[in-house]
Amino acid sequence: MSEHPPIDPGFEARTRASFARQQVMDTLGARMTHVTAGECEIELPFRTALTQQHGFLHAGVVATLLDSACGYAAFTLMPADAGVLTIEFKINLLAPARGDTLLARGTVKRAGRNVIVGNADGYMLSGGERRLVATMIGTLMCIQGRADVTG
Amino acid sequence: MSEHPPIDPGFEARTRASFARQQVMDTLGARMTHVTAGECEIELPFRTALTQQHGFLHAGVVATLLDSACGYAAFTLMPADAGVLTIEFKINLLAPARGDTLLARGTVKRAGRNVIVGNADGYMLSGGERRLVATMIGTLMCIQGRADVTG
Amino acid sequence: MSEHPPIDPGFEARTRASFARQQVMDTLGARMTHVTAGECEIELPFRTALTQQHGFLHAGVVATLLDSACGYAAFTLMPADAGVLTIEFKINLLAPARGDTLLARGTVKRAGRNVIVGNADGYMLSGGERRLVATMIGTLMCIQGRADVTG
Amino acid sequence: MSEHPPIDPGFEARTRASFARQQVMDTLGARMTHVTAGECEIELPFRTALTQQHGFLHAGVVATLLDSACGYAAFTLMPADAGVLTIEFKINLLAPARGDTLLARGTVKRAGRNVIVGNADGYMLSGGERRLVATMIGTLMCIQGRADVTG
Repeated sequence: MSEHPPIDPGFEARTRASFARQQVMDTLGARMTHVTAGECEIELPFRTALTQQHGFLHAGVVATLLDSACGYAAFTLMPADAGVLTIEFKINLLAPARGDTLLARGTVKRAGRNVIVGNADGYMLSGGERRLVATMIGTLMCIQGRADVTG
Repeated sequence: MSEHPPIDPGFEARTRASFARQQVMDTLGARMTHVTAGECEIELPFRTALTQQHGFLHAGVVATLLDSACGYAAFTLMPADAGVLTIEFKINLLAPARGDTLLARGTVKRAGRNVIVGNADGYMLSGGERRLVATMIGTLMCIQGRADVTG
Repeated sequence: MSEHPPIDPGFEARTRASFARQQVMDTLGARMTHVTAGECEIELPFRTALTQQHGFLHAGVVATLLDSACGYAAFTLMPADAGVLTIEFKINLLAPARGDTLLARGTVKRAGRNVIVGNADGYMLSGGERRLVATMIGTLMCIQGRADVTG
Repeated sequence: MSEHPPIDPGFEARTRASFARQQVMDTLGARMTHVTAGECEIELPFRTALTQQHGFLHAGVVATLLDSACGYAAFTLMPADAGVLTIEFKINLLAPARGDTLLARGTVKRAGRNVIVGNADGYMLSGGERRLVATMIGTLMCIQGRADVTG
């Protein structure tokens, strides 16, 4: 917490409200399960409707969850009137994404005023076990003063 | 074509059949519109159900399409009994993904025996215009002899 | 050219002058061989002093050349008083960097006002042949108004 | 340590011997300061001969150090007769690399039999302080049975 002090004391409600506007999360069946300053977790129950040809969650679905976890970890540290956009990310798929629930944990690596760099790890949770399946570095931009990118 | 001669003459039917098993593509509403040796195109009509908080297609949805376009471009060049897995990819989001249809075009940059590197570009098509919205480099692995990764 | 019109008509001299201040290029033995709006080429004669453990140019040396080629391709399109910084890059090593001369060719993929995305390809030239050995996507930032980052 | 048990008990001597063959490290003035199973540290005293146009260490020089730190962290876990090659890496530059010494710390994120994914962080050490200046994800390949890639 002390490493990344939030500018906006209302960051949690603001972050959850923005996430609620990501219609794709509802479509996938994902929910935000944890938010604190510079950190965010999102969970997605496994569904065959989201799989690739071998029955694993598609790499892009894993990336969707990790990108939002990175982005909202960054968003917690932004001013109240800012929007967040992903400039780029890179993801390594480390193991097949097969199991009960995909957990994406995003953290802020370095927060600049305009550019924030985050990490996210993806875990498959299955029967009490947790397996690392993906890891991401992402670069996020803090956008202010643009009418189509707020909140 | 001559640059990347396919090993398997039946690559097109094989590639289309594998794509048809990607249940997530059906869930998103995407279809493969073009396949040739070392190239692949996938299209996705814009849907608000796939958007992030500002009403653009989520970066992860764009990544899903580009990853499959990269992966299947690589898959066309693989032996008939191989499976393809994404080791990693990196994507830059260049402009808001807003418009009528997202077109992902994947091409092979270099085909090794086990590791294939591909590029994909994403375009939003709207009212006869085409706008570059994303670009990817991806690393794919050709998998043989693993029961859970075939086709 | 028309795709990326330069803001500063003196871009070539400005770009060559900035490159001349990169002391590492002199240390490596690299020189800028071509500059036009949105494009840049840098060449480095092979030297064993720059190799990794198997006698190829080290991946980081290849990255050094491609990063500068990307960065200066972007720099050609910037205002006369701007500086360029690399936010991030990603490189794939496609073949061993062994031969006579490494040629790095950088091009601009998309030029925004603050953020520019570039590509670079690396080729080994040997006895009249050219072999693709690396490919990069990089994200550059246009810096204005910062005393320690000019030109 | 228990997370990444080394296959080869002689990994430290083998890793240091391979590093000693990287002629570029001698050219830059870098030395390996720490090796353990799945971890490696390399240090480079700041030299103006390695700077870019604003007087910071060039991004490619930082990448060179972090790539070797990643690669040798992976190499510690490989069989005694294997060679290591970098497939790709991605680096974010987080702050200007200016100071007394650049410290690169590489760790293994996931070790597969053929493909190993590592992280590296880069710190500038100056007057008793340590500042994070770069972070990398890299993908390494374990090469066996290739005459030009051993040790």
